[in-house]
Amino acid sequence: MKKLAILGATGLVGQRFVQLLSGHPFFEISVLAASDNSSGKKYGQAVHWHLETPVLDKVKEMVVRDCRSDFEADYVLSALPSDVAGPIEEELASAGYIVFSNAANHRLDQNVPIVVPEINLDHLNLIQSQQTKGKIITNPNCSTTGLVMALKPIMDRFGLEEIKVVTMQAVSGAGYPGVASLDIVDNIIPYIKNEEEKIVNESKKILGKLKEGYIDPASFSLEAQCNRVPVVDGHLLSVFVKTSERVALDKVIKAFEDFAPLGGHKLPAAPERPVIYWPDMEAPQPRLHRNSGGGMSVSIGRLVKVAEKQIRFVALVHNTIRGAAGCALLNAEAYDLLMG
Amino acid sequence: MKKLAILGATGLVGQRFVQLLSGHPFFEISVLAASDNSSGKKYGQAVHWHLETPVLDKVKEMVVRDCRSDFEADYVLSALPSDVAGPIEEELASAGYIVFSNAANHRLDQNVPIVVPEINLDHLNLIQSQQTKGKIITNPNCSTTGLVMALKPIMDRFGLEEIKVVTMQAVSGAGYPGVASLDIVDNIIPYIKNEEEKIVNESKKILGKLKEGYIDPASFSLEAQCNRVPVVDGHLLSVFVKTSERVALDKVIKAFEDFAPLGGHKLPAAPERPVIYWPDMEAPQPRLHRNSGGGMSVSIGRLVKVAEKQIRFVALVHNTIRGAAGCALLNAEAYDLLMG
Amino acid sequence: MKKLAILGATGLVGQRFVQLLSGHPFFEISVLAASDNSSGKKYGQAVHWHLETPVLDKVKEMVVRDCRSDFEADYVLSALPSDVAGPIEEELASAGYIVFSNAANHRLDQNVPIVVPEINLDHLNLIQSQQTKGKIITNPNCSTTGLVMALKPIMDRFGLEEIKVVTMQAVSGAGYPGVASLDIVDNIIPYIKNEEEKIVNESKKILGKLKEGYIDPASFSLEAQCNRVPVVDGHLLSVFVKTSERVALDKVIKAFEDFAPLGGHKLPAAPERPVIYWPDMEAPQPRLHRNSGGGMSVSIGRLVKVAEKQIRFVALVHNTIRGAAGCALLNAEAYDLLMG
Amino acid sequence: MKKLAILGATGLVGQRFVQLLSGHPFFEISVLAASDNSSGKKYGQAVHWHLETPVLDKVKEMVVRDCRSDFEADYVLSALPSDVAGPIEEELASAGYIVFSNAANHRLDQNVPIVVPEINLDHLNLIQSQQTKGKIITNPNCSTTGLVMALKPIMDRFGLEEIKVVTMQAVSGAGYPGVASLDIVDNIIPYIKNEEEKIVNESKKILGKLKEGYIDPASFSLEAQCNRVPVVDGHLLSVFVKTSERVALDKVIKAFEDFAPLGGHKLPAAPERPVIYWPDMEAPQPRLHRNSGGGMSVSIGRLVKVAEKQIRFVALVHNTIRGAAGCALLNAEAYDLLMG
Repeated sequence: MKKLAILGATGLVGQRFVQLLSGHPFFEISVLAASDNSSGKKYGQAVHWHLETPVLDKVKEMVVRDCRSDFEADYVLSALPSDVAGPIEEELASAGYIVFSNAANHRLDQNVPIVVPEINLDHLNLIQSQQTKGKIITNPNCSTTGLVMALKPIMDRFGLEEIKVVTMQAVSGAGYPGVASLDIVDNIIPYIKNEEEKIVNESKKILGKLKEGYIDPASFSLEAQCNRVPVVDGHLLSVFVKTSERVALDKVIKAFEDFAPLGGHKLPAAPERPVIYWPDMEAPQPRLHRNSGGGMSVSIGRLVKVAEKQIRFVALVHNTIRGAAGCALLNAEAYDLLMG
Repeated sequence: MKKLAILGATGLVGQRFVQLLSGHPFFEISVLAASDNSSGKKYGQAVHWHLETPVLDKVKEMVVRDCRSDFEADYVLSALPSDVAGPIEEELASAGYIVFSNAANHRLDQNVPIVVPEINLDHLNLIQSQQTKGKIITNPNCSTTGLVMALKPIMDRFGLEEIKVVTMQAVSGAGYPGVASLDIVDNIIPYIKNEEEKIVNESKKILGKLKEGYIDPASFSLEAQCNRVPVVDGHLLSVFVKTSERVALDKVIKAFEDFAPLGGHKLPAAPERPVIYWPDMEAPQPRLHRNSGGGMSVSIGRLVKVAEKQIRFVALVHNTIRGAAGCALLNAEAYDLLMG
Repeated sequence: MKKLAILGATGLVGQRFVQLLSGHPFFEISVLAASDNSSGKKYGQAVHWHLETPVLDKVKEMVVRDCRSDFEADYVLSALPSDVAGPIEEELASAGYIVFSNAANHRLDQNVPIVVPEINLDHLNLIQSQQTKGKIITNPNCSTTGLVMALKPIMDRFGLEEIKVVTMQAVSGAGYPGVASLDIVDNIIPYIKNEEEKIVNESKKILGKLKEGYIDPASFSLEAQCNRVPVVDGHLLSVFVKTSERVALDKVIKAFEDFAPLGGHKLPAAPERPVIYWPDMEAPQPRLHRNSGGGMSVSIGRLVKVAEKQIRFVALVHNTIRGAAGCALLNAEAYDLLMG
Repeated sequence: MKKLAILGATGLVGQRFVQLLSGHPFFEISVLAASDNSSGKKYGQAVHWHLETPVLDKVKEMVVRDCRSDFEADYVLSALPSDVAGPIEEELASAGYIVFSNAANHRLDQNVPIVVPEINLDHLNLIQSQQTKGKIITNPNCSTTGLVMALKPIMDRFGLEEIKVVTMQAVSGAGYPGVASLDIVDNIIPYIKNEEEKIVNESKKILGKLKEGYIDPASFSLEAQCNRVPVVDGHLLSVFVKTSERVALDKVIKAFEDFAPLGGHKLPAAPERPVIYWPDMEAPQPRLHRNSGGGMSVSIGRLVKVAEKQIRFVALVHNTIRGAAGCALLNAEAYDLLMG
């Protein structure tokens, strides 16, 4: 069993790491680290647990420690908040750790890949240009993950010219305490700080091409408008796409359904169907479809052909699983298989 | 005082008519009509009241009658559901009544105008081509109303080429009982029957040009994707616009703020500011801004310039006031002033 | 494998039956029956699925049939609505079927037991006084189930004199479409038809004593006030209890924790811990604790001693699992073990 | 016009003060004071406004100052949070100001009255035992206010022996940011810190008797269990009452409807009907009835006679109007009339 340290273990994404690693076939949690408020306490006491499944008793008994870099761990999963993640992750990389980070701090660094294994597993090789003994590998922002999973099969088959996306994002995406209830009961907030920029920059990098020591970003135009909605988990995206080639809906559907680029590799966190197309007019819905594929599948619906080279559709991603902890874990599994 | 008959008086839009007419300076309710379930009962007993302000006692005591065409009324306001509105409204027009209808049935009829007084008051003249003694004048679908109010100032100043809109629509838009709670608590439904078609067709007609006996629809391209969200009142629209001319944000804001085409006419239901621009990053929000201008103002925010001829923004419309009863009432006021 | 027919299979409780029977060690679904609207269709087309886990493909393919009494089935699970359940269930009992019913119609019949296996398994014997070849065995109303599970350990140890309970009930308790969203978003409805009477009558019968051919109801006084709240699943109950004997909180907690009357019998649907006491001040909460024990455990918290013979606490029950389909299934398992 | 200083003016209760004082016949706002974060800024910039009606422009332009005691004001309304209110209010009283406080800090001080004008206006005289030049007058906790308004008419007519109350409290009661959305969407929290104690202690004091220099608390027994629910405004209370005398429902209803103890005094903030009884089975509901009497009336429904000397009912109070700012303002109006 490989040993994993979880940083930011008491936060929402940290809790998902703990949940997803329960019963993992070749990873086990060796370290739970968090801020000084929590360090020294048992995890069961330090954590304000928010998930519907309970914490395992043995994990509850583990003592939370600080985030300084002397972990007994093969890999580090970082769910640190972005106001502290940057220097801690750098220090860990310098100290020789392989860090799988959900934080935004290093995503746009030239040498750091943003990886979604089904999309750009080859970008992992970018870490060879990192000068440190250890390495940093990031996964995208939660809404970005849903978008690129939906776009990749279309890009491969028809090319992408112009994308406009409107997001309707769940409150868990803002962490805890995050969004105040007074701001969201019977309400929507049409703004999420930095989110629109992240979607644009990260999507272009993920869907870009690996070059010598950097990623050449994709050249399509992309615009996003982000909204916070009163939903617990699951970001819904309304996506308008202009393609390079003529599209036919049956071929788009086939592209979604055939999308299984990891088929050869057996990764425990990988869903059987990374992208699921739902023909029902009222699908996908956050409450009904967010847990598809254990929260790791992206659901697509409302697919409409608008013009010869234009389609639109709706996509749903579980923001704290596929959009955060699950993707980082999948990155760790992929690294372990290919480079570990 | 002119006498008004309200059809469909017990429904959600009917209740708004009753609310908005309380204390009206020159209209009074003479008839409350509804389906046979309700007719014969006192309004206070027949109605399942959903609004936060109470019904006036004298209205509660009025006896609800059926919708057959022998009303003692100068004008008829119709909030009938579309499965019955069509023939009833035709019969009333034949019988000589001026019908202001919120129902979709006749909106796309060649001779019937869809009027939002601030936008296309001149379309009222289309009724002269109706062969009946009475006339039918419609107001748009709720989300359409918000969209065209936001687009009109831009169209007049910069021209419109291509519009994409994503709506996040309140549950009151579906009437009562409407959306089941099990479908919307902790959820979004990415589909509203017929809504996307209505937005496209009605917007082009409203923003089109009055010709001899018909409306020549506007020529921009328009696409909509509609979602139901867990909000009581207030439809939020995320709008992407390509203009014909180069845009500058300060001029767009000025166009919104200067938009007061009824300035000369004093109509009681008309808000002082039909379109309000909110500079705050987190505005507009349904709960905070839907009642602006008594629910008759459309709120705009998150205005961004994307390219030389591209902008995007968010718009909010109170769906049962400006988007339904309030607009029909404003149409009645405008007709009464100009043609009554 | 014993064959089970599910009646009312397309409704919310019927869906839970389908979900809970997936992978059952000795029961399999042989018949899915529903109203004439659904009969003849494949289950996957007939059902408007509301649960977060998907329907198995083989169940989707089963053809739904009507509810007439010629099933190939060892047992019948009835999730029929109460407006049709009565005569259909009687006919089935006459035709020789053992019917496990979630409907209220026969619960208060003298010869019909209301069974919660952990509480009153001996009441099963009451069916011997039923004159039909088949038999009817009911489970309680959803909120009643939570209440009696919480009261039984207290009654056994300290006796019960007077109980007052206020319920905060989830929308799924009203079925589908059930509660209109306009009635419950940003709102509470302080009334649920017939619910208060059911809690009183059913609780006294379940906690009563089996006599020759009838149940002698428990003699404590009991009052309930029921509210509908904007929660998807999970009824929360605030309970005030006057006991016959002096209480000590540690003994009450021990009574909850030791409560395992089925310990000897191995029933697949039975949770390891039927009643779970949570010491955390903010527990139990519907979203976090409703799925405890697979939705079959009742969670208790906020336990306070008020006076020598008075306590109060909060209880949570998953209304469509322990409070409906899960309890009926547990009854079928218990019957099969003991009498089958 | 008397001049009023508002302390804690940017908070939720402070915003209600600002809203309620707009257009007041004999009070005007002279000072808006808040924490050092806000002081020096214009109110329009300092406040995160949460109410559906907009702030007046002239109030937006006022500069917020700190809470030190050199106000140009006849009265001080304090909406300070309890972690800072205590010493600031004492200092103001020492400096000669009459302070109407919504904070809990001094409510249980022997010399400080908790006043709800309709209930215990005579308790105002307790301030004469305060040794300071200025005085402190408090209003109750939000849920307590609803409870005592409902109990007072019953106590006067039938006497009170034993009361049990379960509250379902809106999120605005916790201030801003207050309750995290992740804790309350699709959820209930069965605990509110210090709330149960406040209800018990404050209710007994308010319904107690004024003696020489202290209040002799009422002698009934009272128990409360408090829950936070996903509602914006409006606390709902389920109340079980044992009376001293036999009750008859028609007399209870009459007691509620006749309850108008301020009848003689004309106070602008006083509602025409302090307690409204709603006979409809589904009333009162937070969204529909919280604004009754401008948010100053308490609504009662679901009245049931349980036994000769037992009733139960549901009560609704607007927590930030009658339960906070509105009650403090009413106290100021009453003081001004009687002692000012």
